[in-house]
Amino acid sequence: MSIRIGIVGYGNLGRGVETAIRLQPDMELVGVFTRRDPAQVATGGAAVFALDSLADRRDDIDVLVLCGGSKSDLPEQTPELAARFTVVDSYDNHGQIPQHFAAVDAAARAAGTTAVISTGWDPGLFSINRLYGEAILAQGETYTFWGRGLSQGHSDALRRVPGVAGAVQYTIPAEHAIERVRAGEQPELTTREKHDRQCFVVLEDGADAEQVREAIVTMPDYFAPYDTTVTFITAEELARDHTGMPHGGFVIRSGASSPGTTQTIEYRLQLDSNPEFTASVLVAYARAAARLAAAGDHGAKTPFDIAPGLLSPKSAAELRAELL
Amino acid sequence: MSIRIGIVGYGNLGRGVETAIRLQPDMELVGVFTRRDPAQVATGGAAVFALDSLADRRDDIDVLVLCGGSKSDLPEQTPELAARFTVVDSYDNHGQIPQHFAAVDAAARAAGTTAVISTGWDPGLFSINRLYGEAILAQGETYTFWGRGLSQGHSDALRRVPGVAGAVQYTIPAEHAIERVRAGEQPELTTREKHDRQCFVVLEDGADAEQVREAIVTMPDYFAPYDTTVTFITAEELARDHTGMPHGGFVIRSGASSPGTTQTIEYRLQLDSNPEFTASVLVAYARAAARLAAAGDHGAKTPFDIAPGLLSPKSAAELRAELL
Repeated sequence: MSIRIGIVGYGNLGRGVETAIRLQPDMELVGVFTRRDPAQVATGGAAVFALDSLADRRDDIDVLVLCGGSKSDLPEQTPELAARFTVVDSYDNHGQIPQHFAAVDAAARAAGTTAVISTGWDPGLFSINRLYGEAILAQGETYTFWGRGLSQGHSDALRRVPGVAGAVQYTIPAEHAIERVRAGEQPELTTREKHDRQCFVVLEDGADAEQVREAIVTMPDYFAPYDTTVTFITAEELARDHTGMPHGGFVIRSGASSPGTTQTIEYRLQLDSNPEFTASVLVAYARAAARLAAAGDHGAKTPFDIAPGLLSPKSAAELRAELL
Repeated sequence: MSIRIGIVGYGNLGRGVETAIRLQPDMELVGVFTRRDPAQVATGGAAVFALDSLADRRDDIDVLVLCGGSKSDLPEQTPELAARFTVVDSYDNHGQIPQHFAAVDAAARAAGTTAVISTGWDPGLFSINRLYGEAILAQGETYTFWGRGLSQGHSDALRRVPGVAGAVQYTIPAEHAIERVRAGEQPELTTREKHDRQCFVVLEDGADAEQVREAIVTMPDYFAPYDTTVTFITAEELARDHTGMPHGGFVIRSGASSPGTTQTIEYRLQLDSNPEFTASVLVAYARAAARLAAAGDHGAKTPFDIAPGLLSPKSAAELRAELL
């Protein structure tokens, strides 16, 4: 029997969930639920309904995948919808996770639903790797590097520089820092030492390239503390080569199991599309949520609470025979 | 309260478990249990007892970590000891895991114990990454590369070549194959195409280096099908540089979340000591086993069945606040 999924919110993430569900053998998409006028939402084929109509759909939907933002949507939506549905979200405001967990847990327990929060890759797969790393190599250091990835905030900062017509910024893990970590040095590294900044900039007509470059590389906080490169490109190149949303990064645990014996665990993501990958993780956790709910295991859960096998469409016996 | 651990068997793996327990904040080693004469077993400080004396220790031990071999020890020991203790093993005969699971599960369920089998890194951490990879990127290919690692069987084969006084062989993941996988090509690769063989050889007095090299690189099955390099070294260099037991490898999942959108998940281990790392994984799973047993979750389990959070000494709330 298929797992029946509803998508709440239809931006890049919701669109990615729609695509990801099609690749899964055991899922069926009921539709997209939106606060916008459904007639104005063009999907990749999914039916579109008003968010308010969810009230009538409790018996048609096994799991809602919540695709709103962490800033204002999810803190309200996840507890509210967990009071009626089994849900999965990608809440990624690390500092507020305990509060979010508590609010969602109370709603889900009262309602007898299961709510998986903070899935995706960070929080999510990166978190799991931080946990496995420090549990296994009890003595050591954990390093998280982000990138190569498009940074929206830094791209916006570039666009505010006088003389800039258009720009994107990629955060790049600093290769020399990664090499030191891989070599088992266990260096102390700040976020700044771990990342370089790569800027692609289209100049306004008549703008002075050197002045613009100087304004960028000396910008406090955003660029001055980093190894920053600025490459000038044409508007055509910007449109052709820089519309994707790549991201990724590394989690590296470097530890010593005995004096002088270095052990290194490295987890790396290289993503052509950040939202499509996050969506793919959400969908796998939707399967786990449906199973936990069916087993009566209610309340809020995070990826730390969910056994790997629950994510796979295969049975436990198949997994032991094929993948162990 | 500390988790009280007993070690069964004291070779490289048992020695690694003794060392790993010392690094964990919440564990205490009761002692080593051996089939040998306890007076003849020199440990790193742990008390040594005869294996038979385990019968009297049921109330002193929370988890037994079984450090015997997969060929003849574990198929007998794990079911037998699971009938009396909560246990963890590193059974690694992939093809026989379903049978081993069934035998251990029956014993553990009847006895009301928990038995975690096939932990370590392959099976174990590599298996978990194969599972997460295919559950998340439903459309794609998974690649496992082993190495750089010492291969006992191939080292033995080198030593049988006339003119060879001593030798070791390392299996190396083929860099060009890894690059193709990382680039998202999803190539079809045999085990042979994925690995190179690196030989370090000490010649007997008067042996002809060219003849020995030729005999090695043309040896059917072992070396002929591979890209094999032979480096001649002195007996002193062999003793100085090649007594460690390094190993490691990669699990790479390359998938497309939509046409043309490549997503790559890469998991890499670089281990100075294979047995010490495997021991570190066993010890983290011993913690999970103790918790599952205390919660009344009995029977055989594999790493697929165990939520990541159970491996950490931290509480679920601490993990959410610090690592998610």
